[in-house]
Amino acid sequence: MSELRRDPVIGRWNIIDTDEPMGPDVFEVEPHASGQGLCPFCYGHEAMTPPEIYAVRPPGSAPNGPGWRLRVVSNKFPALKIEGELNRRGIGVFDLCNGVGAHEVIIETPDHHRQLSDLSVEEVAATITAFKVRSLDLRGDRRLKYTLIFKNFGLSAGASLEHTHSQLIALPIVPKRVQEELRGAERYFEFRERCPYCDMLHQELQEDERLICDNRSFLALCPFVSSFPFELWILPKAHHADFAQIRDEEITDFARILRETLRRVQTALGNPSYNFIIHTAPIEPREREEYHWHLELIPKLTRTAGFEWGTGFYINPTPPERAATVLRGVSLPG
Amino acid sequence: MSELRRDPVIGRWNIIDTDEPMGPDVFEVEPHASGQGLCPFCYGHEAMTPPEIYAVRPPGSAPNGPGWRLRVVSNKFPALKIEGELNRRGIGVFDLCNGVGAHEVIIETPDHHRQLSDLSVEEVAATITAFKVRSLDLRGDRRLKYTLIFKNFGLSAGASLEHTHSQLIALPIVPKRVQEELRGAERYFEFRERCPYCDMLHQELQEDERLICDNRSFLALCPFVSSFPFELWILPKAHHADFAQIRDEEITDFARILRETLRRVQTALGNPSYNFIIHTAPIEPREREEYHWHLELIPKLTRTAGFEWGTGFYINPTPPERAATVLRGVSLPG
Repeated sequence: MSELRRDPVIGRWNIIDTDEPMGPDVFEVEPHASGQGLCPFCYGHEAMTPPEIYAVRPPGSAPNGPGWRLRVVSNKFPALKIEGELNRRGIGVFDLCNGVGAHEVIIETPDHHRQLSDLSVEEVAATITAFKVRSLDLRGDRRLKYTLIFKNFGLSAGASLEHTHSQLIALPIVPKRVQEELRGAERYFEFRERCPYCDMLHQELQEDERLICDNRSFLALCPFVSSFPFELWILPKAHHADFAQIRDEEITDFARILRETLRRVQTALGNPSYNFIIHTAPIEPREREEYHWHLELIPKLTRTAGFEWGTGFYINPTPPERAATVLRGVSLPG
Repeated sequence: MSELRRDPVIGRWNIIDTDEPMGPDVFEVEPHASGQGLCPFCYGHEAMTPPEIYAVRPPGSAPNGPGWRLRVVSNKFPALKIEGELNRRGIGVFDLCNGVGAHEVIIETPDHHRQLSDLSVEEVAATITAFKVRSLDLRGDRRLKYTLIFKNFGLSAGASLEHTHSQLIALPIVPKRVQEELRGAERYFEFRERCPYCDMLHQELQEDERLICDNRSFLALCPFVSSFPFELWILPKAHHADFAQIRDEEITDFARILRETLRRVQTALGNPSYNFIIHTAPIEPREREEYHWHLELIPKLTRTAGFEWGTGFYINPTPPERAATVLRGVSLPG
């Protein structure tokens, strides 16, 4: 059982793997090439993963066998496990609780050689539907407070397997950054009685300096306070706090803009590694006048994490206005 | 003039370089080897840097000429510049001000082939003295609120030049992470009327599970809530909020423990890249019962910055107890 531990000063929670701890020898100081071994996410290798939790497959086909187009499985090396009690407790000045939660992997396609941006709109929509279905299912567990959906693409963004996949971690706490967003949004709402993200959207549409692209339901932009070069956000145009309540027609629009945005990043920046994270409201309460779910995407272009981690202070050499101009200017085939 | 911009939700300030912005072509997506060109920090290349602000050199020797053992110069590509007015202002929901501040480089030795950990205790002490002298000098400027001292060592920790150096950035705002520490420490103090860091130190000494080494004035440990494998902190044993008031005998003790700790990290982990940051109180007020300056060091061993940036949620595969055991167990020559 791993532990969640809370910093007594800042309030940040971390997972500490006391179960299968890694020693100093396992870390590669120098970058290494991607693994060329047998891929557990490939078609025909279904037995190499934990059993399917969810899949897109032909009616009547058996789980964990052929025919699938998308699979969700438990992470083989989970950061959190679903069994056990939280047991929140203190040790002197420190707080901790057990590492209860879920850690799932969404295998977006059986094809090892396609990226998420290579998939069709329908295939990307199937991935988003999987995010939604799994989020809703995990809400039944009262120990869980937050569902974190993210993707690491490429070795330097932390992806340990090359085969395209995203991840879902259901947590018994709300991550620090989300808490900060919620508190900040609450303060803004107290003062102005409006959602700050709705106000931002409105202003961005008026100023038209940092927009990348949009469609019926979504807008992609480079945020005014980008911490990283070419950081970008995708926001629903209408006010929604909870990602998991996304409707079917919105799923298609979200798939369309996510795919388009990824292709713009890929073309403009030479297919960089990236991380994206869906920022959504905690499981309860789901309805919030002041919060607005969105996706944040960071292409991995710089190497300054340690300093910025230590200070919360980011030095970004690329203004978002410039980044948006570059991304907007990409001409895509089709 | 670059801009400082403030996130309307979280309150984080960033520097946006609107002056000499970098486009998409300048980023290397793949890691690259360290530059082999002419080094501006080497002995005899003094004309390649901006003029000396401070130096350790023989009495009577001329600035920017031979004889030096340590130099402080302005960063040739500064994140902030000392000229101009702050001009805090709003644009709709957004806040910004001009990028006023100082950005200096401490060249720790003329010798290109030595790391900070290779220097003598006296040489490391000279580096720490330079941190102190420059911090105190910049306090005269009323526009500045915070002095950030840090070191990036190695390409993957963000060092753009191989020659060993540290940096000082004087800021017109207090970085977010420091503000969080201050607020958290204030809340703790309100409740217990004690400094939380003093309490932590006391508990760590009692438990003796996460200590690495100590001397008369300082303690090195792996913090209970380490966010990264082998993260370590160095804290003064006595309560001091303000680094810049460090006394001469404490400088020697700090140099001794910093050098020892770096050598332990180097030996245990194969000379990894690392970042360290000195966390100290803002310039005013300097005396704070609830805050305790310290150095945080992060060896660059993992590659997961984007996800963790997006969530404030860190997954650390190495418990600090294990890391401390490894670092404590290193046998150093001499």
